[in-house]
Amino acid sequence: MAAPVTVYGPVISPAVARVAACLLEKDVPFQIEPVDMSKGEHKSPSFLKLQPFGQVPAFKDHLTTVFESRAICRYICDQYTDHGNQALLGKKEDGAVGRAAIEQWIEAESQSFNQPSLAIIFQLAFAPMMGRTTDMAVVEQNEVKLTKVLGVYDQRLGESQYFAGDDFSLADLVHLPNADFLVNRTNKAGLITERKNLARWWDDISTRPAWKKVIEMQSAPRPS
Amino acid sequence: MAAPVTVYGPVISPAVARVAACLLEKDVPFQIEPVDMSKGEHKSPSFLKLQPFGQVPAFKDHLTTVFESRAICRYICDQYTDHGNQALLGKKEDGAVGRAAIEQWIEAESQSFNQPSLAIIFQLAFAPMMGRTTDMAVVEQNEVKLTKVLGVYDQRLGESQYFAGDDFSLADLVHLPNADFLVNRTNKAGLITERKNLARWWDDISTRPAWKKVIEMQSAPRPS
Repeated sequence: MAAPVTVYGPVISPAVARVAACLLEKDVPFQIEPVDMSKGEHKSPSFLKLQPFGQVPAFKDHLTTVFESRAICRYICDQYTDHGNQALLGKKEDGAVGRAAIEQWIEAESQSFNQPSLAIIFQLAFAPMMGRTTDMAVVEQNEVKLTKVLGVYDQRLGESQYFAGDDFSLADLVHLPNADFLVNRTNKAGLITERKNLARWWDDISTRPAWKKVIEMQSAPRPS
Repeated sequence: MAAPVTVYGPVISPAVARVAACLLEKDVPFQIEPVDMSKGEHKSPSFLKLQPFGQVPAFKDHLTTVFESRAICRYICDQYTDHGNQALLGKKEDGAVGRAAIEQWIEAESQSFNQPSLAIIFQLAFAPMMGRTTDMAVVEQNEVKLTKVLGVYDQRLGESQYFAGDDFSLADLVHLPNADFLVNRTNKAGLITERKNLARWWDDISTRPAWKKVIEMQSAPRPS
């Protein structure tokens, strides 16, 4: 029997990895449908029905389809409430206030961390893989932006164990893919590992079983 | 008695206007605490406690504080469930699937529409107000990006009345501030008004009483 939950996109893509991490934290079985972007499969009519912008990931379960990685993660938490980690979007008893404490840091990731970190990753990790030249001016410009954000993060993580308090949540999880690339596939690891609180937080969240499983999936040879 | 809900930031700011629109749709009484950014009030220690990045808006009610406009809007819907428009994050009976249909388009706004529209607005509306020179190369570059997004939007709005289906939702609301600036304070209105389905949608959502009230608040003389 096919798994009831499908994630479309190569798991090396940070946004696909984000969704995979969430499903693994939630103990929801799923299958990856790779989508060969080099063959333009993400622009095919059938894929555009799932994701109208022609981007990865897209998501499908027995009830619906969803696109955009952070929307997919929220849906997984809202729909599969009784599975796996049940505090990713806040404990039930903490209600709207608990969820908002998480949502504001998910938005910080989305609005402030994602763009500069992705720009650096693209220049230092993806461009060489694709045989393109690294634009160091872009790296430097985005390092300045990212440094400001990480200053705020380090202060926050000096006040509480995780972004939203005592529990690992989606606010931490959404950072995993870009942060992992930064630490492990560029020479900019120090941006995270040389800041005391960020380094402690990174050691903690990057060694969670769910994330280690994503890394394993990213390293596995592609199905031929 | 002071209003129990406070939004910090000048309502002319698109992100502050987004939160005001949500509160008005939800019929939640609130007061605006302007925050004088020309005097650096957004970088004061007391403001940084509300918003660690020193950006507007911040939000406070009798239960908590929240930052980031889209996180604040979600909180307002989640906390004030019985107030005003009760379908902004989906009808209760539509559950997680209904919410996800909205969330994916909120994320589209946040990831794809916001950056290029804000860049154009900044160059064509804010820069002249601030006595800065408009950088037309930035305008043109972002117009190319925005045009692609609006093509997808126009197709979507040919399939359904609003982004997430038959009801106006947060997915539509989050677009209001940037779209209004684009249509009414730049010479790029045609990007929206010359596309059939987007034009129909824009006429509909921009004439809702809540948004008309925000525009009125933006035009009101500042308290001296």
